[in-house]
Amino acid sequence: MADAVSFKLHLTDKRTKARLGEVSTPHGSFGTPAFMPVGTAATVKAMRPEQVREAGAGIILSNTYHLYLRPGREVVREAGGLHAFMNWDGAVLTDSGGFQVFSLGPLRKISEEGVSFRSHIDGSPHMLTPEKAIEIQNDLGADIIMAFDECAPYPADRAYVEQSMERTGRWLRRCKAAHRDLAEQSLFGIMQGGVHADLRARSAADIVALDLPGYAIGGLSVGEPKPLMYEILDACVGLLPENKPRYLMGVGSPDCLFEGVERGVDMFDCVLPTRVARNGTALTSRGRVNIKNAKHERDFTPLDPACGCYVCRNYSKAYLRHLFKAGEILSSMLLTTHNVTFLLDVMKNIRAALRDGRFLEYKEEFFASFGSF
Amino acid sequence: MADAVSFKLHLTDKRTKARLGEVSTPHGSFGTPAFMPVGTAATVKAMRPEQVREAGAGIILSNTYHLYLRPGREVVREAGGLHAFMNWDGAVLTDSGGFQVFSLGPLRKISEEGVSFRSHIDGSPHMLTPEKAIEIQNDLGADIIMAFDECAPYPADRAYVEQSMERTGRWLRRCKAAHRDLAEQSLFGIMQGGVHADLRARSAADIVALDLPGYAIGGLSVGEPKPLMYEILDACVGLLPENKPRYLMGVGSPDCLFEGVERGVDMFDCVLPTRVARNGTALTSRGRVNIKNAKHERDFTPLDPACGCYVCRNYSKAYLRHLFKAGEILSSMLLTTHNVTFLLDVMKNIRAALRDGRFLEYKEEFFASFGSF
Repeated sequence: MADAVSFKLHLTDKRTKARLGEVSTPHGSFGTPAFMPVGTAATVKAMRPEQVREAGAGIILSNTYHLYLRPGREVVREAGGLHAFMNWDGAVLTDSGGFQVFSLGPLRKISEEGVSFRSHIDGSPHMLTPEKAIEIQNDLGADIIMAFDECAPYPADRAYVEQSMERTGRWLRRCKAAHRDLAEQSLFGIMQGGVHADLRARSAADIVALDLPGYAIGGLSVGEPKPLMYEILDACVGLLPENKPRYLMGVGSPDCLFEGVERGVDMFDCVLPTRVARNGTALTSRGRVNIKNAKHERDFTPLDPACGCYVCRNYSKAYLRHLFKAGEILSSMLLTTHNVTFLLDVMKNIRAALRDGRFLEYKEEFFASFGSF
Repeated sequence: MADAVSFKLHLTDKRTKARLGEVSTPHGSFGTPAFMPVGTAATVKAMRPEQVREAGAGIILSNTYHLYLRPGREVVREAGGLHAFMNWDGAVLTDSGGFQVFSLGPLRKISEEGVSFRSHIDGSPHMLTPEKAIEIQNDLGADIIMAFDECAPYPADRAYVEQSMERTGRWLRRCKAAHRDLAEQSLFGIMQGGVHADLRARSAADIVALDLPGYAIGGLSVGEPKPLMYEILDACVGLLPENKPRYLMGVGSPDCLFEGVERGVDMFDCVLPTRVARNGTALTSRGRVNIKNAKHERDFTPLDPACGCYVCRNYSKAYLRHLFKAGEILSSMLLTTHNVTFLLDVMKNIRAALRDGRFLEYKEEFFASFGSF
């Protein structure tokens, strides 16, 4: 039976490990390198789904932990899955819920069987296991589903990271065994191993042996310095198969996108563009714009003169500042639309630059214009 | 010099006082009876302006008090006025700020000169006079600007209502004298007089003598029982000139729209559709839907099967309930779009029914289907 998701590698950059490709899913294809906007609770916050599409997204990410607790897997299943429920006809990837339950701190307890935890909403007790994470994701119906892994914190004892990485491998086998409808949903495995290159190599070998349709790099961007993250990426992206998409989880600041692409990553996700928008920060070609700043009070120019998005075509910084100060919902709507469009435009430009053999030149131009990250 | 705003009366209903007409402004025409969505702070909350247009609005209302305090009249003037500032190319009406400052209670003090008050945002002291209310509205640049009046509370001493009504008349003369650019902005006078038919008649005679391009009925829907409001409307709408638009301020629940139209009102405004949307209530042809209700948890039908709006075409009650429970911004966005579209569709249907000579039949059908208000 054919996998739901397939990957076509168009080219690899001559001077870097950057790749241009395409991922096909039951809900359309998208070019890689790709950024996936995050729609935690089956909505990319403050955007209508067709606006997410218009911004250039071919795939979004949604969170199993949140949807499992609210509205519940049965509601989404009965709605016909996430696509129908949220009115999004593009591709969807769901995480396994692992990252969120591990972030609950004292509210959760890990064993070989899985993780028991209490809901952050009502304190009710729950248990996630590899089997259950797959079952829930089967109900949610995303095109790409993720293995139930443990994302070890940073910093952490090497011994703990090793043990956790090994357990992630055992859990992946249980996920694979539990997942049956391969033609509808593709299961991606997740490499762990913290900031230890040798553990990363062992993890890679362990999961690649299972011949899954895609692989993710987990456990980075969790507090370690960026140079250390880049060093680990240097060491481990190439350990994943060339003919499968490679997904760096939870990474999406503009500098990290370029650095990840340069090291051979194909897919990214991050709440950054949507979250900072709600806090009044715009990402622009000239760096971050804090819309709260008093200097924008009478600035009737757009957020980013180089941007052609709906927001930059129609609204001034003075108006956006007013909306933010007045606590208006339209503030979040407009800044989110701009930020998501901006990041997706960057990815589009990266793909065009790769096609034209000038990825490094584009990276240099972008960094020079953006200034400090 | 021609007035900025003109009114064309197409027909008066044979069996009621309902009128079908059209108001022309420097920013387009709109059919009457018309409902004006409220955009307090230069945004119809949770909607993009083109969505307000798509919902069928030809005119929106914005609030002088709020805009005067934030972002300030100079910012809006320098932006080129409200239309340019908020990216809305339809007509705009601004109130005078009177209603809001009178609602401040102990924070304000009334004299013949005007009203001194403290900002609800930072406590700073301010003074609004008829002259200043016009000056500010000149800066805001709406197509229709409103006289600075006193809206007496309900209940109130008859003697107080009389005194206040007479002052409103004197203030109107000062407003008229202060307003000069008649070709750009039209000043509407406001009838007061509380629930006393004789005071209403004196107020009407007083303001109609000034031959303004339009007249409003103020001081209703401020707490009096609905039958009393209808009784006053019966007595006073006909005292306003036939060839000028008549605007019933702050009224917008579906039943009151029909009752107002039936008595000869042409224009309405109200925060109701936008405010209740943010609280999880939808207006539908079958009455109000409380989206929080547990019975909607697995209801995959639209809010209103008889509605053709974007929301009813694409989303289920189950999804809308989920968004509301999860505190998602998209909840306010979608419910607001539905409610505004719903009310504007009702107005469109009223105009069509007037054209077809079946206003009373449509009213009866609507009331029977809506149930209790």
